[in-house]
Amino acid sequence: MNPKRYLPILQWLPGYGRATLTSDLLAAVIVTVMLIPQSLAYAMLAGLPPEVGLYASIAPLVIYAVFGTSRTLAVGPVAVVSLMTAAAVGQIAPQGTPEYLGAALVLALMSGLILTLMGVARLGFLANFLSHPVISGFITASGLIIAASQLKHVLGVEASGHNLLELLVGLAGSLGQVSAPTLVIGLSVLVFLYAARRWLKPGLRRAGVPDRPADMLTKAAPILAVAVTTLATWGFGLDAQGVAVVGSVPAGLPPLTLPGFDSGLWSQLFVAALLISIVGFVESVSVGQTLAAKRRQRIDPDQELVGLGTSNIAASLTGGMPVTGGFARSVVNFDAGAETPAAGAFTAVGIGVAAMLLTPLIAYLPIATLAATIIVAVLSLVDLAAIKRTWAYSRGDFAAMLATIIVTLVVGVESGIMAGVGLSLALHLYRTSRPHSAVVGRVPGSEHFRNVQRHDVETDDRLAILRVDESLYFANARYLEDTVMELAARQPGLEHIVLACQAVNVIDASALESLEAINARLKDAEVRLHLAEVKGPVMDRLQHTDFCHEMTGQVFLSTYDAWQELRGESDGSLSRRCAELQMAPLR
Amino acid sequence: MNPKRYLPILQWLPGYGRATLTSDLLAAVIVTVMLIPQSLAYAMLAGLPPEVGLYASIAPLVIYAVFGTSRTLAVGPVAVVSLMTAAAVGQIAPQGTPEYLGAALVLALMSGLILTLMGVARLGFLANFLSHPVISGFITASGLIIAASQLKHVLGVEASGHNLLELLVGLAGSLGQVSAPTLVIGLSVLVFLYAARRWLKPGLRRAGVPDRPADMLTKAAPILAVAVTTLATWGFGLDAQGVAVVGSVPAGLPPLTLPGFDSGLWSQLFVAALLISIVGFVESVSVGQTLAAKRRQRIDPDQELVGLGTSNIAASLTGGMPVTGGFARSVVNFDAGAETPAAGAFTAVGIGVAAMLLTPLIAYLPIATLAATIIVAVLSLVDLAAIKRTWAYSRGDFAAMLATIIVTLVVGVESGIMAGVGLSLALHLYRTSRPHSAVVGRVPGSEHFRNVQRHDVETDDRLAILRVDESLYFANARYLEDTVMELAARQPGLEHIVLACQAVNVIDASALESLEAINARLKDAEVRLHLAEVKGPVMDRLQHTDFCHEMTGQVFLSTYDAWQELRGESDGSLSRRCAELQMAPLR
Repeated sequence: MNPKRYLPILQWLPGYGRATLTSDLLAAVIVTVMLIPQSLAYAMLAGLPPEVGLYASIAPLVIYAVFGTSRTLAVGPVAVVSLMTAAAVGQIAPQGTPEYLGAALVLALMSGLILTLMGVARLGFLANFLSHPVISGFITASGLIIAASQLKHVLGVEASGHNLLELLVGLAGSLGQVSAPTLVIGLSVLVFLYAARRWLKPGLRRAGVPDRPADMLTKAAPILAVAVTTLATWGFGLDAQGVAVVGSVPAGLPPLTLPGFDSGLWSQLFVAALLISIVGFVESVSVGQTLAAKRRQRIDPDQELVGLGTSNIAASLTGGMPVTGGFARSVVNFDAGAETPAAGAFTAVGIGVAAMLLTPLIAYLPIATLAATIIVAVLSLVDLAAIKRTWAYSRGDFAAMLATIIVTLVVGVESGIMAGVGLSLALHLYRTSRPHSAVVGRVPGSEHFRNVQRHDVETDDRLAILRVDESLYFANARYLEDTVMELAARQPGLEHIVLACQAVNVIDASALESLEAINARLKDAEVRLHLAEVKGPVMDRLQHTDFCHEMTGQVFLSTYDAWQELRGESDGSLSRRCAELQMAPLR
Repeated sequence: MNPKRYLPILQWLPGYGRATLTSDLLAAVIVTVMLIPQSLAYAMLAGLPPEVGLYASIAPLVIYAVFGTSRTLAVGPVAVVSLMTAAAVGQIAPQGTPEYLGAALVLALMSGLILTLMGVARLGFLANFLSHPVISGFITASGLIIAASQLKHVLGVEASGHNLLELLVGLAGSLGQVSAPTLVIGLSVLVFLYAARRWLKPGLRRAGVPDRPADMLTKAAPILAVAVTTLATWGFGLDAQGVAVVGSVPAGLPPLTLPGFDSGLWSQLFVAALLISIVGFVESVSVGQTLAAKRRQRIDPDQELVGLGTSNIAASLTGGMPVTGGFARSVVNFDAGAETPAAGAFTAVGIGVAAMLLTPLIAYLPIATLAATIIVAVLSLVDLAAIKRTWAYSRGDFAAMLATIIVTLVVGVESGIMAGVGLSLALHLYRTSRPHSAVVGRVPGSEHFRNVQRHDVETDDRLAILRVDESLYFANARYLEDTVMELAARQPGLEHIVLACQAVNVIDASALESLEAINARLKDAEVRLHLAEVKGPVMDRLQHTDFCHEMTGQVFLSTYDAWQELRGESDGSLSRRCAELQMAPLR
């Protein structure tokens, strides 16, 4: 057992030097500035008090630095996971209650435990259940829902809803109560952030600012918006004129919290915790892998599960909320020159200082500003081009993507992702449930066999040779039964069926049962079943089965051997009974 | 559109003659005799009044004769589906209430609609989700639960429970109230039926009775037990001494019933209806296929869905319960010489006559007799040898089977089957998520390439050739990314990576995204990505993608072409840019 594998911090800490320290510190300052408004905003999106977002950006970062394998990933609250948190916790208790806060902690703890256990059991492959079109569709739909859910803050009205339709109907019904000063602030920030994204960086570049600083300055636009609108609200007393503000936020380091252990609550939140874990893991791993590859580094997905899991456990013990590796912040961290996870730990210190010292200053921060920040951030997640691209490339993948989008928008986030996963699995099973197979005949004068429908080959009415081009397992076992029995029903004079198995790498228990059923049914129909070209490992397993003893026919090394023997052109030395093969395995 | 395909009755009715009529009539008489006690018993198992079992054996049989494709399948209430019905309906209302009865009708209707729609949409392949080990484990566990649930009737005590543990605890707690006369009747029937199964047929054979009549007589043992115990109870007035009896059963043909359309009830029952549909379909199709094969006939699984679906709809409209093709009764029907589904229609007439005339006679039928009939029938479903066999053959399949058994016994039937399906899918994805791939090198002096780990081959530090031995789709897309990036990270001087795709039949949208990610990451790492031996249909799709335009490398007809060109041993004529291939597709 290699401790460096399970404690990745040991890989970089011993060689940590002054140059790396300087790079990491600089990156930490830049990420901290970016993270403050983002953390406040995502806490609000999850329906939690703003300080929870800050708390969730402290301890998890330190823990990830110990257990995570990505050198540059920045963990913390992210948009999609915050939306999923709001959806899950909202079913337990109303926002603003202690129960709501407590349920968010339980969700973070459960998600942390699930991720850690998956990592220890090396179950990272489970993330493969989420195909790219499903993830892409889910993120697009989530982005639309998040944007719609924040519009009320920009308009300064009350409205609620769990899906896009409800949200839009709620907004339409409350347009009469729009607060003009709130709308002015919200729209100004929206326009400013959009303009900064669109024109600031090119403008700075043209003004001679190098690429990276220009990028950093652009990414700092939200903090500028926060500062200006907070000052304006305070200076002009806008909060008295109907502009909702964050209000008093307790100053200080994160509290120690112990999530509740109510089994009813745990079982209610289990599915949500599982989905949040998997979605968060997939997002985090994609970001981590992309960044690692740029420097020819590697991340270990199973250890990443442990890193994210322990980070979430840390979040749950320090008054936080579910966290994962975020795309935007990790890219900023990387571009700012972070070299080790120590940058994350320094960021945690920065956020900690903010939590202690800056919270009194944000009492006048308008909620509309945070909402506008969120809207601009999530609309960049909406990828309509991906929908078009998927339609053009594959109708099946498109169907899975569309189902995910529609169900997410119309029903909700959990149902949406489950619909997508269910449909992509069903489509995959459908594709592989009809494996390619071909009746083959002999190329005259040779030992080669080819598809009878494509080539002019020699056949025999008493003998059918079926070449199966895929491993046999439960999804296609029944199809094999159908194919063979149809063959037998079609050719009345048939005496022998040979399955040519050169492409069969695995025969699972379902396929074995099917072979037994085929053998028994062919026996009733007075047709014998033979095998040819069975691979070594497959034959090893078959030898200890009832099928091997009950098989009416023989096992041949090659299809040509079967052809010769079953047409009576050989002396019987080319075949063996399956049950007699124990001592002499095939190649 | 061929009407014979959608109305299979047209295939046999026009040629129906006197000889077939005689065979079918004889089979119908035998099946009717067998079906009367079975229908009463399975209705009781489902928690429904006994006449419901008879009703469910009338209209569905007639409808199946019109729409079903098996010549000999006998539909009606079966043990496992009855158990699932009891579990589902028991969550809606207590047994004996009109709501319970109504929910059973809704369940039959929903199951019928689901099956019919699946048939029309040709979704029979969905049954492939249920692997053989999962079905086998589920049926074994169901058999144990059913047997345990019937023990209370044999003992004459009150007890209830939804899983094996609860059932056994309930029984143990009520042993003090055992009714002696009930126990005597129950045990006698158990012993008699067991003995009949075990010794009657061999005994009759030794006494010179031919095989088939001997079998028929054995199968008629339950009706004898019913007759004798009913007479005894009536004669000795045992019902006054604590023997529970069926009581008065209304005489007459099935009533016309209209299941309720309460959306709350429908959504509560949906999952149960879906599972009942799929389990029933799988059971029915296995029986149908086995019997069809014996006479070299075929059944059409998608049309079978329609046949079973319309049968269930008929059951729901005539006071019945969910039905499917049963194993025991279909075998009896087949062995008794049934030649067409007309035998089923004649059986329906027989059961109809019984419902009109015999119901007054069964008022004194002891419930213990029915319970004993069920126990002997379902214990034959318990297949412990299959568990051992699966363990020996495949640990993965065994895990899925064991999970199904344990969850079914401990939690319940629906959870059990879902656990099994979930685990077998997960195991399948796990298997295929790590496809075989090999770094290959050139066999010196040849154009062949082999695995570098197994053969002594020529390699080049600037060039890595990876042969992928499986289609690329969402479950293995991430693994491909890992494999390629690990290769790039391991070989520092690398300039080119070639993916040799001779075994790749499909690249789905997820795998395409992975190829794009691989291409982009390799570009960051200054390694070019090339493809070789791409199959025609795969290349056709790739040509219209962004990947094709962004690919840093080339497309080669053969691996050897790539080897020559990338080592600078050729004049550049062997490769083409992906985007230039539109006009000249590869083979």
